[in-house]
Amino acid sequence: MVDNFTLSCPTPRPRDSIVTLSHGGGGRLMKDLVDDLFITAFNNPELAEKHDSARVAAPGGRLAFTTDSYVVNPLVFPGGDIGSLAITGTVNDLAMAGAVPHRLSCAMIIEEGLRIETLAAIVDSMAATAAAARACVVTGDTKVVEHGKGDGLYINTAGIGLIPTGREVVPRRVTAGDTIVISGDIGRHGIAVMSVREGLAFETTIESDCALLTEPVELLFGAGIDCHCLRDLTRGGLGAALIEIAETTMLHLDIDETAVPISGQVRGACEILGLDPLFVACEGRFVAFVPADQAVHAVDALHRHALGVGAKVVGTVAAVQPDERGLVTSRSSLGTRRVLDLPVGDQLPRIC
Amino acid sequence: MVDNFTLSCPTPRPRDSIVTLSHGGGGRLMKDLVDDLFITAFNNPELAEKHDSARVAAPGGRLAFTTDSYVVNPLVFPGGDIGSLAITGTVNDLAMAGAVPHRLSCAMIIEEGLRIETLAAIVDSMAATAAAARACVVTGDTKVVEHGKGDGLYINTAGIGLIPTGREVVPRRVTAGDTIVISGDIGRHGIAVMSVREGLAFETTIESDCALLTEPVELLFGAGIDCHCLRDLTRGGLGAALIEIAETTMLHLDIDETAVPISGQVRGACEILGLDPLFVACEGRFVAFVPADQAVHAVDALHRHALGVGAKVVGTVAAVQPDERGLVTSRSSLGTRRVLDLPVGDQLPRIC
Repeated sequence: MVDNFTLSCPTPRPRDSIVTLSHGGGGRLMKDLVDDLFITAFNNPELAEKHDSARVAAPGGRLAFTTDSYVVNPLVFPGGDIGSLAITGTVNDLAMAGAVPHRLSCAMIIEEGLRIETLAAIVDSMAATAAAARACVVTGDTKVVEHGKGDGLYINTAGIGLIPTGREVVPRRVTAGDTIVISGDIGRHGIAVMSVREGLAFETTIESDCALLTEPVELLFGAGIDCHCLRDLTRGGLGAALIEIAETTMLHLDIDETAVPISGQVRGACEILGLDPLFVACEGRFVAFVPADQAVHAVDALHRHALGVGAKVVGTVAAVQPDERGLVTSRSSLGTRRVLDLPVGDQLPRIC
Repeated sequence: MVDNFTLSCPTPRPRDSIVTLSHGGGGRLMKDLVDDLFITAFNNPELAEKHDSARVAAPGGRLAFTTDSYVVNPLVFPGGDIGSLAITGTVNDLAMAGAVPHRLSCAMIIEEGLRIETLAAIVDSMAATAAAARACVVTGDTKVVEHGKGDGLYINTAGIGLIPTGREVVPRRVTAGDTIVISGDIGRHGIAVMSVREGLAFETTIESDCALLTEPVELLFGAGIDCHCLRDLTRGGLGAALIEIAETTMLHLDIDETAVPISGQVRGACEILGLDPLFVACEGRFVAFVPADQAVHAVDALHRHALGVGAKVVGTVAAVQPDERGLVTSRSSLGTRRVLDLPVGDQLPRIC
């Protein structure tokens, strides 16, 4: 029952109310939203300074710096949500440069009409994921756009990571003779998002592989592996990741398609949907380019972590022939070889 | 004339074509867009490494870290565009922490149907503004959303700045007795965007004040001014900036409204539109909280720069009385004092 007292409160902000344009206007509603939701959830002294920029202590040396916007539809999917994904994706991009996550930013573009309860749940998910990654969200931004000019919520995260001295993880270090190790099975993120969006029912729910990769990557370095390059298998999947590395380095990568771990569920879903699993996105898988004589050791190291139990060797960087520069070839179960090429667009839009 | 040869080209990408969902899918079209447009325009070795994170050298010490998303409507306005604004806003947030811009990120959320020509012009504008700020865009991201799920283009930029040793520019250093110096006239950005969006015709075009603030801020430090705090007058304008500082520090700020520089044009537009100019956004103006005995010197230093010719003292941090903690008061031309309060929402939505 609504009584007069409730009606006379200056700014009631129950969590079941909705975001309005006024929440993005720099006025009282925005300040309250930022204070009550973001500063409370991300709770740390740098954010609490409420300055135009966070002031961050950093040791000298190499930093990693990355950004991604997240437009995944729907906002919640089996195994994650746009909030956990936004933290995970940026932390993983730092890990791929051999960096330990240090500080994160969070910028929201909210469509008018989003329930504040939904926003709060997503912010809580971001805060929990950031805590798991031992990274603080120290700066942010909130914008609101009119109904019909967004799609619920878009999140941008940027991240600063610290690269320990001596680590040089970068595409140009990939060398002919390197072994390509994959950390586990592919394609679960793309299929999980697609199946819930399109209302596809499989016998059991396929969950996203969305996971923080800092720990398995650190296990590799801890085991003394000289990772020449690391690449997570996000938009475009394993195929796109390898093609990018091949084209950047102008080397020839050769993989054994039969060695690539793919769950029966994902394989079945791909067959039904007419998708090539090599190009379906993951959000918790990566490949490592390591010296051939360290490959077994690298796989062993990954096996010690839950996110690496399915790790195996899937290919090599071949000796380059002039006509194979920048190519990725793949051997099928029939022994034939095909050249992998990027699809023109994407098999699955809006999955990250 | 279109001949057979042209038609047989594998992927013609004339700049007058439009962005499609496929440009955000991690496939060939996205790779080409990123290579041809972003990597070419922002041209620097860190970006050219094409890694998941840029690897950035940084000296030890304090960094500033900030992010903002830009949803300004329309994309181009008198005196700027969303691209120049996105670089300027983030560089200015770094400057407000006393930092020199070091590295920037750029993440685009593009609505399907945007002309590539428009996107290219905006990217060129970003690159030119970043060059003027002596900051490199070293990492980025591209997403495309369906028609009707965006509004042409949203841009997020994050920035890392270097804070020279000994600078401590932060709200909690604001002290009773400090003088508040403003760098110039207020309100031109908000009115410029509003007038073009709403088709309001004034006698002469009001241009945005959008400008990089690093140079005038560095002039202050170069003159030996101990800036306790700096704050740019963006969303919510001078009024919101002062209220935020007052509420964060629980001090009492008192300004002389008659001293606040406002052009006749902006004053006239505000009267017609029923806006309070104190709460209209700027994108190239700031206030500095400086020790009282350095105020004249600070104003003199700002006068040496084109962006500071209108600088003047507008108020003080008053001795705090218990009932005035966290308040901003403003003296009018009639000698009366009013307490400034944040509007609930915003007078002008989507101006940044």
